[in-house]
Amino acid sequence: MKKIGKQTFSIKDNVFVRDTYTIVGKKEGEGPLKDNFHMIVDDDLWGEDSWEKCELKFQKSAVEKLMEANNLQKSDIDLLIAGDLLNQITSSSFAARDLMLPYVGVYGACSTMALTMGLASLIIDGGFAENIICVTSSHFCSAERQYRLPLEMGGQRHMSAQWTVTGSGAVWLSKNGNGPRVRNVTFGKITDLGVKDANNMGAAMAPAAYDTLSQHLEDTGVDYDLIVTGDLGTIGKGIVNKMFNDDKKSIEKKYDDCGTIIYDIEKQDVHSGGSGCGCSATVFGSFLFKKLMNKEINKLLFTSTGALHSPTATLQGESIPGIAHSVGIEM
Amino acid sequence: MKKIGKQTFSIKDNVFVRDTYTIVGKKEGEGPLKDNFHMIVDDDLWGEDSWEKCELKFQKSAVEKLMEANNLQKSDIDLLIAGDLLNQITSSSFAARDLMLPYVGVYGACSTMALTMGLASLIIDGGFAENIICVTSSHFCSAERQYRLPLEMGGQRHMSAQWTVTGSGAVWLSKNGNGPRVRNVTFGKITDLGVKDANNMGAAMAPAAYDTLSQHLEDTGVDYDLIVTGDLGTIGKGIVNKMFNDDKKSIEKKYDDCGTIIYDIEKQDVHSGGSGCGCSATVFGSFLFKKLMNKEINKLLFTSTGALHSPTATLQGESIPGIAHSVGIEM
Repeated sequence: MKKIGKQTFSIKDNVFVRDTYTIVGKKEGEGPLKDNFHMIVDDDLWGEDSWEKCELKFQKSAVEKLMEANNLQKSDIDLLIAGDLLNQITSSSFAARDLMLPYVGVYGACSTMALTMGLASLIIDGGFAENIICVTSSHFCSAERQYRLPLEMGGQRHMSAQWTVTGSGAVWLSKNGNGPRVRNVTFGKITDLGVKDANNMGAAMAPAAYDTLSQHLEDTGVDYDLIVTGDLGTIGKGIVNKMFNDDKKSIEKKYDDCGTIIYDIEKQDVHSGGSGCGCSATVFGSFLFKKLMNKEINKLLFTSTGALHSPTATLQGESIPGIAHSVGIEM
Repeated sequence: MKKIGKQTFSIKDNVFVRDTYTIVGKKEGEGPLKDNFHMIVDDDLWGEDSWEKCELKFQKSAVEKLMEANNLQKSDIDLLIAGDLLNQITSSSFAARDLMLPYVGVYGACSTMALTMGLASLIIDGGFAENIICVTSSHFCSAERQYRLPLEMGGQRHMSAQWTVTGSGAVWLSKNGNGPRVRNVTFGKITDLGVKDANNMGAAMAPAAYDTLSQHLEDTGVDYDLIVTGDLGTIGKGIVNKMFNDDKKSIEKKYDDCGTIIYDIEKQDVHSGGSGCGCSATVFGSFLFKKLMNKEINKLLFTSTGALHSPTATLQGESIPGIAHSVGIEM
């Protein structure tokens, strides 16, 4: 059994992160990672007539550009694993319709990027596939109107709220190559400490991040150069640090969060930081992948985090279940 | 590479369908399969205060009863793979919260049962897991109000409409055992011929069913005793038969659809038949699994079918993308 510890799957053969492609919106393109993204789109509709259609264009384009850049044909790709935040993951389903690839749709809210990469790694290492493309996306405007309030209302944003990243990141995993390799995958359990505030998702997700991170570190014993979570923002990141410190196992010196990396939190008025499926996808596909390729870091623990809430459940008085999935990558 | 033909993954080692548990609502319990289900719940709220909470209770209970019946502890289960029709797959996420198992959420609309079983088979055969539980659910009332109209409106149902099955089916897949084995898995491509009518999903899904079925049959060459689709209903089933007949490869004599099996279509006033994630899940977990165990059939091609539409996309003028995933099982 390729399982280590209680909850971690160990990748025995080669599963390489071959290449990535990231497309982001205007705000992300003005942030500290602006020189790292592959494409920046200034128009929040990108010529489409709705934000939802724009988001699907982001996702579809990220996959197409990734394939073009690597001269990949459809017949080279064994599987597309995709997800997003929209109801019925419509960005993914509609992008997959145009891409015409065998398609597995997943839903893990903002934890989706690590979920897709984890599943793809297992399927490649299991000997079933040579090449899998993983992709996720989110869009500030489509997410706000679905999860919170219509933008047209002009509501005041809470200081604990996060800014959904407009962007899509596609990752090509392959059994062939010579770059960074996926070594260990931990799928998380749901953790829910009772947070009910959809404007404070960092707090809702942080205990799940702590649970999966500590299980992964215990299972693998790997000493990572960098541990990143997906989109906890400043509040959630603080909670994770506190939980590890309380445990006397501080990770503070090597820990960061994509939601705090992607924006200049003060200057860009994003309150608690970035969030959304596109957050960890675009930060991994640009900044983090480069750090691995340049050997600035050799061991990365990439952990996307998701708040699995639904407006319907929230209206029925339910709290927000959190989840986190970890993918350990080594150069 | 454990891949045969263009699109099918071949399971080399043992992946057994060890056991199942099915819970259905009153209408399903009055249908032709009434003696096959494990539990029938007469109350459409099952003591909960919303249909959504009732659906999550169905899903959670199906897994718990399956584990109880087989004396399975949480530590025996490597992974829970689950999905449902609700936005943000809340039934699955909230059930997983209570079940406290490592959790992978997927979205494939009504194709979800075969999607979960396909993924689980690859993960077990890949050597990562010993035991995986797959579960899906749907509920007539929660689905109607999300996808179409609030029930309280008392709207007239179209004759081409299908009746969403209230029920949940859980399936235990294991590397150990001696019953039916999963042999081949085909994940489908999106097929969309432009149907825009959410009251005629059979027509929207049928071309996808044809695409995956014909690819699976071409890739494997297996002569199945029985081929079942998930929830095409009478209209979709007719289209699939016509497409194969036009191809001069009729499957009519050994082909049926869970949506037409689960209800007495005429007497139960379900118009075109059953649908929903719970449809193929409960028919597989009861009637079909028994047929395999009793050796009435030895080779079953189980193909769940999904209409990946969203009310938002439909309001924006989009058509309904269909998908189908196939799992070939042999006794």
